[in-house]
Amino acid sequence: MSELLPPLDRLIQQFRKLPGVGRKSAQRYVFRLLEMSDAEAAELAEAILDAKRSVRHCSVCFGLSQDEVCPVCLDEERDRTTVCVVEDVRTMLTFERVREYRGLYHVLHGAISPMTGVTPDKLKIDELVERVKAADSVIGEVILATNPTVEGETTALYITKLLRSYPNAPKITRIAYGIPVGGELEYADELTLSRALEGRRNSEG
Amino acid sequence: MSELLPPLDRLIQQFRKLPGVGRKSAQRYVFRLLEMSDAEAAELAEAILDAKRSVRHCSVCFGLSQDEVCPVCLDEERDRTTVCVVEDVRTMLTFERVREYRGLYHVLHGAISPMTGVTPDKLKIDELVERVKAADSVIGEVILATNPTVEGETTALYITKLLRSYPNAPKITRIAYGIPVGGELEYADELTLSRALEGRRNSEG
Repeated sequence: MSELLPPLDRLIQQFRKLPGVGRKSAQRYVFRLLEMSDAEAAELAEAILDAKRSVRHCSVCFGLSQDEVCPVCLDEERDRTTVCVVEDVRTMLTFERVREYRGLYHVLHGAISPMTGVTPDKLKIDELVERVKAADSVIGEVILATNPTVEGETTALYITKLLRSYPNAPKITRIAYGIPVGGELEYADELTLSRALEGRRNSEG
Repeated sequence: MSELLPPLDRLIQQFRKLPGVGRKSAQRYVFRLLEMSDAEAAELAEAILDAKRSVRHCSVCFGLSQDEVCPVCLDEERDRTTVCVVEDVRTMLTFERVREYRGLYHVLHGAISPMTGVTPDKLKIDELVERVKAADSVIGEVILATNPTVEGETTALYITKLLRSYPNAPKITRIAYGIPVGGELEYADELTLSRALEGRRNSEG
């Protein structure tokens, strides 16, 4: 055994496909796995296959779903007049965790980035336009919650122009950028500070 | 989707069984997995099952093996008179990586630790004694390479006494502890330094 056994080496290569997993972590995972019972290891493998098999994109919002349409889109309690546009499912989950937002979502699955070949047609932008323009649409506001990055801003701008070009366009808003709650102004970066100034509102009270 | 979909939640729980994987890492793994093709995900699951299925303990040294006896134990080129006793397979692999050692191994699969219920009978100590005492044994030296911890030291002491109690006991040695090569004496802890003093040898040249 001058090198690791081939099946273990193969498994290390596989684990390394996971984000942030280097050779050392992968090797630790493999050894832990060898200590597990056969049933436990099978459970992990089955959970991987099951997640891939049973989870797909919702045909309305492109979030994750086990069925054709996801629970959020089906939820009659939610405000169907508002759609929050996010770059990825993770952001959608973050919004859900806040429990403040009760509208619907639209997941773009990326942001416009010509440098890396992500053009608007690679994203779920046409599908957003269709949702908004649909004859039975009740959407009154589209909240753009793309990331405050060059790509995110470009995407927000692109969608804004696109939606505004149609008659009866809904209200299009962008979430506020500013000083994070609990953050200290002293340590704020200039861009955030200038955004916070730009977005200032009348002080209440 | 006020919470994650059940299949994804299940997979997160499974990933968390891996060492050092918390909720956040597990979630990142799950999302990467969802981005993979079905074939890629199946490859990972299959590699897990295959590793468990095809790797077992060598019946001689209790290292990892795909067959009854591992390649190291079968290797006729190796020095069959020396057995290096280690706590786990990882240590065996570390020794192999050094490529200095050409003898055989014996993996104990742990160290004596009465506090956590690891008594000598839970380790491959009886199997080591049998190997040493076997009629056809050519073992002339047993190198104890347990960890420099209370458990490792206890285990080394226990094995030493046990093997010495038999007639024709082989030479029993313990690997040297001292200042790591490249380490600075200034920063050495007291225990290591006292071990380094204890183990001093005549200066050559």
